[in-house]
Amino acid sequence: EALTQVASWVEKTSIGGYGEHHYNHFEDKNDEVDAHRFVLYFGHQFTDSVRFFSEFELEHGIAGEEQVGEVELEQAFIEWDYTQNHSVQLGQFLVPVGILNETHEPDTFYGTERNLVEKEIIPATWWETGVQLKGELAPGLNYNLALHSGLENAEGKIRSGRQKSAKANAEDFAYTARLKYTGIAGLELAATVQYQEDISQGALTEASAWLTEVHAAYTVGPFALRALWAEWDIDGDEIELLGRDSQDGWYLEPSYKFTDSLGVFARYSEYNTTAGFSNSDDTEVWEYGVNYWLTPTVVLKADYTDFVSESSGTDKDALNLGLGWSF
Amino acid sequence: EALTQVASWVEKTSIGGYGEHHYNHFEDKNDEVDAHRFVLYFGHQFTDSVRFFSEFELEHGIAGEEQVGEVELEQAFIEWDYTQNHSVQLGQFLVPVGILNETHEPDTFYGTERNLVEKEIIPATWWETGVQLKGELAPGLNYNLALHSGLENAEGKIRSGRQKSAKANAEDFAYTARLKYTGIAGLELAATVQYQEDISQGALTEASAWLTEVHAAYTVGPFALRALWAEWDIDGDEIELLGRDSQDGWYLEPSYKFTDSLGVFARYSEYNTTAGFSNSDDTEVWEYGVNYWLTPTVVLKADYTDFVSESSGTDKDALNLGLGWSF
Amino acid sequence: EALTQVASWVEKTSIGGYGEHHYNHFEDKNDEVDAHRFVLYFGHQFTDSVRFFSEFELEHGIAGEEQVGEVELEQAFIEWDYTQNHSVQLGQFLVPVGILNETHEPDTFYGTERNLVEKEIIPATWWETGVQLKGELAPGLNYNLALHSGLENAEGKIRSGRQKSAKANAEDFAYTARLKYTGIAGLELAATVQYQEDISQGALTEASAWLTEVHAAYTVGPFALRALWAEWDIDGDEIELLGRDSQDGWYLEPSYKFTDSLGVFARYSEYNTTAGFSNSDDTEVWEYGVNYWLTPTVVLKADYTDFVSESSGTDKDALNLGLGWSF
Repeated sequence: EALTQVASWVEKTSIGGYGEHHYNHFEDKNDEVDAHRFVLYFGHQFTDSVRFFSEFELEHGIAGEEQVGEVELEQAFIEWDYTQNHSVQLGQFLVPVGILNETHEPDTFYGTERNLVEKEIIPATWWETGVQLKGELAPGLNYNLALHSGLENAEGKIRSGRQKSAKANAEDFAYTARLKYTGIAGLELAATVQYQEDISQGALTEASAWLTEVHAAYTVGPFALRALWAEWDIDGDEIELLGRDSQDGWYLEPSYKFTDSLGVFARYSEYNTTAGFSNSDDTEVWEYGVNYWLTPTVVLKADYTDFVSESSGTDKDALNLGLGWSF
Repeated sequence: EALTQVASWVEKTSIGGYGEHHYNHFEDKNDEVDAHRFVLYFGHQFTDSVRFFSEFELEHGIAGEEQVGEVELEQAFIEWDYTQNHSVQLGQFLVPVGILNETHEPDTFYGTERNLVEKEIIPATWWETGVQLKGELAPGLNYNLALHSGLENAEGKIRSGRQKSAKANAEDFAYTARLKYTGIAGLELAATVQYQEDISQGALTEASAWLTEVHAAYTVGPFALRALWAEWDIDGDEIELLGRDSQDGWYLEPSYKFTDSLGVFARYSEYNTTAGFSNSDDTEVWEYGVNYWLTPTVVLKADYTDFVSESSGTDKDALNLGLGWSF
Repeated sequence: EALTQVASWVEKTSIGGYGEHHYNHFEDKNDEVDAHRFVLYFGHQFTDSVRFFSEFELEHGIAGEEQVGEVELEQAFIEWDYTQNHSVQLGQFLVPVGILNETHEPDTFYGTERNLVEKEIIPATWWETGVQLKGELAPGLNYNLALHSGLENAEGKIRSGRQKSAKANAEDFAYTARLKYTGIAGLELAATVQYQEDISQGALTEASAWLTEVHAAYTVGPFALRALWAEWDIDGDEIELLGRDSQDGWYLEPSYKFTDSLGVFARYSEYNTTAGFSNSDDTEVWEYGVNYWLTPTVVLKADYTDFVSESSGTDKDALNLGLGWSF
């Protein structure tokens, strides 16, 4: 009867989502309120072994001609479990690198704004289109191997190089490999290596690039620690002249949960997008603040961002308030 | 089994929506067909007392570079019933003012186009980001108290001042209070007062503003009457020079339902966005027409808009046909 | 209990979707990866005889200021079965013409890219706003009769003339009639005639137009054949001077399925958007390739497009890879 009919589509199709509102009180510019992210998930199970997953996002609340925001497809892939413990993803997926890039729901991390190392160096949120193999090699040991579209920026700017699978130049590809170990309760260790054939997509004579990233996340009782390091090594004279042949960063984030609902954190980050210049200064940032979980997936955040030194020279120190949810 | 799994997400997550197609036969310019609004609702119940609600909209059918429409997040808030009969909303919500701003599904009102007083003076649809307390003071008597982001327009233009929570300037806030009485069957009485600290967000030396709005909606048998009055009182010499220190409007809308499916209405509106000039003419508009409800939430509309006098001087008289739905 | 509550919205509301990722290796320009289409369906059953259906699309992965993609409402209509076997659609619907325009899920056709005749001549995907009557005249014999908004292009360009119901100029309407016969298993025969009052919407002294389209689709065992022919006949001196008074095209597509999962096809197409010039060359295209269905509605595609001759003179020969899904 009715309930059985109902099941026919709901059993296989599912929706979810997450979102974040931000308030930033900046020291040196106008304060801001922003519907930073509004995200919907749509999934479908075609068979026991074939499924679809997607992430659709509206950033900054409004998108269109002369509007500040935009609409983005962040994931849309078919996943096929071709054998036990191993699957292949076809389509548009999040690059398997870093802590935040694949898991970026606001209730899963501290700080209103995402950390700057993963934003500027990794560069999260980062998706590409291609083929990804993933699976379990041994209990707790997982791998990812992906062939996918690459970055495109003739000045070696990593974050601006994301083409977002929107009529993306695909003259040159990229290759990513990750090993992740989660065999000990509370611990995650992971390392990613990526090779880009040419991040200028043919605009420069040479612009191949290697990205290396390692991170650890460890939780013991109320204590937790996240540590991450990432580095780009880009070949080619043109990019070397701009100091972008080397770009790197790292952060360390201890945190403490007083209760299931209340936690505090501190984060020290350093990064440099022109580390190829020997005299280039690292951007050094201290962040500290508090998360309050109204429910396990609804979170209120308050934190302060203190730029100790900045390569760009502008003061972006800010007090941030955030509201996030996921379902 | 399957049905139980199904319930796991559907029980907590829900979707809905509404939309409107318009045809306007204008007296003095080209006729128009428009997919005016296409709206989806997404909600989630986290716990018995914590829930999420959102409204996602595509206006004018197509959005992107050089396209006429846009995508908008109109609501996205967490609501927490912190005690019986009282709750707090955090995030982006519709400002509690007027008749249409919070309830704008096309099957709930007469006329293809929304009335001009609530569009130009209120200015619906109007959302801001902040904190809102709401609840019941006595049977039939409800309150709203909100602290939220404010308007930004250095010329005192109200409708253009909506920042839509898109990287909105938040140097100055606004405060809204509403009392609503629905204790007598068929009657709604409400009054809203709002204080804006500075609708120029620091661009002018002084631009604080007060909005006052009152309305009544009364239904007796087949008869219904809606009446609304709203006024802005803005301080500051710069805005006074533009005549926008005072802006006001009101309308009266009697209607009659022949059957549950068929109703007719007339509406007389007056408004003036430069009422600060003593010689400024009010825009006076007569509208009259018919609604036919194919189902309780699917409606066909036909009406005529007659601009008796216009401060802008252009003739926008039009015959309008509309199709609306909500679910 | 819970399951019954669940049924309350899910029983009436449903979602679905489809999408396509493309990789194009072009002979004479940069290769491309593209999240070409990401589509969601939202439907609602108001009563047994009244329902809503809509199609919401993000093209090319990202939409906003200075972005390449766009968000589009492709369908949004109310359908009312006003008597047995006959219904009326009100709102925005797909024009009943051709094979692909109404059924464009990627698992239903061969080739990564849609065929060029239906893209350039028909021009799919093509929606308008208006009223459509449809129903069954006899077993297997169906009709569509529609009054709807028209094209607008003062140079007689058909594809660019689609106004997409976005504040569309509606000075002049169009009328479409289709007969479709599906009374023999495996066979579909259809013919569409459309009259446009003025495809310049008043910009030219005369620009009325007739579109005629016929097609057949026949499946016998593993063999299938699709054949389609379409032609525009446009009146008016201005458009005649541009050679666009006549525009036509046809294609023939035999295919063969080795198994339920694996099929091959070839397609020969000819079309000319300036056939009014006696010396205008047809664009002639050969396409051939393979579809592999991972599940009945998840498909992988590989094919080659060979432009034998082109009126535009540019070489767009390409090897295409595609991934598509629908649910």
